[in-house]
Amino acid sequence: MLQLYEHPVSGNSHKVRLLLSFLELPYESHNVDLMEEEQHTEQFLALNPRGEVPVLADGDVVLRDSMAILVYLARSYDTERRWLPAELALECAVLEWLAFAASWIQFGVFSARAAVAFGIMANGLPHDYPTSPREGQVRGKRSLEILDGHLRERDWLVGADATIADIACFPYVALAPMGEVSLDPYPAVRGWISRFEGLPRFVSMPGLEASGSQHS
Amino acid sequence: MLQLYEHPVSGNSHKVRLLLSFLELPYESHNVDLMEEEQHTEQFLALNPRGEVPVLADGDVVLRDSMAILVYLARSYDTERRWLPAELALECAVLEWLAFAASWIQFGVFSARAAVAFGIMANGLPHDYPTSPREGQVRGKRSLEILDGHLRERDWLVGADATIADIACFPYVALAPMGEVSLDPYPAVRGWISRFEGLPRFVSMPGLEASGSQHS
Repeated sequence: MLQLYEHPVSGNSHKVRLLLSFLELPYESHNVDLMEEEQHTEQFLALNPRGEVPVLADGDVVLRDSMAILVYLARSYDTERRWLPAELALECAVLEWLAFAASWIQFGVFSARAAVAFGIMANGLPHDYPTSPREGQVRGKRSLEILDGHLRERDWLVGADATIADIACFPYVALAPMGEVSLDPYPAVRGWISRFEGLPRFVSMPGLEASGSQHS
Repeated sequence: MLQLYEHPVSGNSHKVRLLLSFLELPYESHNVDLMEEEQHTEQFLALNPRGEVPVLADGDVVLRDSMAILVYLARSYDTERRWLPAELALECAVLEWLAFAASWIQFGVFSARAAVAFGIMANGLPHDYPTSPREGQVRGKRSLEILDGHLRERDWLVGADATIADIACFPYVALAPMGEVSLDPYPAVRGWISRFEGLPRFVSMPGLEASGSQHS
């Protein structure tokens, strides 16, 4: 069975839980206690030298990044290629948004949330590093403008249906209010959040109720 | 013919130039003057709303992120799949390192270099944002430790030959000294830089001579 090393409040872990749920794939969950810095123990670093969750093990295949895991699961288990289109131009358009999630979102609304809600800078900085949400908030607002502009003309980030591009961008965008970045100025983003949360087999995570979506 | 929108000192542009050279693909270059903020003009934002180079156009396909472009070029034109292994587990191992380049490296040694050498925070922040290389340097050193640990046991990041994982990580790691992050403590990384620069059809870019490699 698939083994997922994760944490309940980790949005990067949640991306994997979402796809596992959408694909109705059973898995075994291993909690890595981020609050106790278990991700920096020797035992966990042997599994993932980057000291990050999620990690997915599928037999001999061990993957250490949510982006790689989403692609792997979609290519392995989504036989209809609903979540990652098989056509190369569309697949690479999905990759554009996976990169957006790993850069603009991870170092924008993600880091603002980590600073405000958890008092840490995260993203590879030590827990005693001086905390400021400002850079993440400025970058976060710009990234929400970019997303909002894109979503004004379409329902989903790539193509006519939700893909792993939407999954990769969803958690930290929907959690932006936890980092004191309001979603109010971005109506197209809010509409997309509602559509995403309305998908069959959508699963929630702690904090999403603050997004002002249907779960509030 | 392939159209590449880029800038000579952009390491993300250089990643694409490297793969184009390795694959011996002809292309037409369009200079986007980052020093004059041409990436934020209305005309360029119509091409890439993220305001970033590189952008690649191949007929109707337009891709806006170096990671997506590397995958697209490898899948489209590298018929032997030398640069992106066809086996799924290896392809996803490559994606792990593309994510590492888009996050750890982009917001580590990349941002330290932007602050020290160009006096800007880059990565989506306005040019008048207060500049500090410190966060990028701290994260950068940690990412070089991670890379060094990985490369102590192997010549290339994934598998037995250089792949787009190496291309994606190479420029900003080799340019780290421009951000006042020394490569001296990382012998395995320095060995990898030398091997990479020794690849047939390797092309250089401004600043690489400072890496202490064979080009110094």
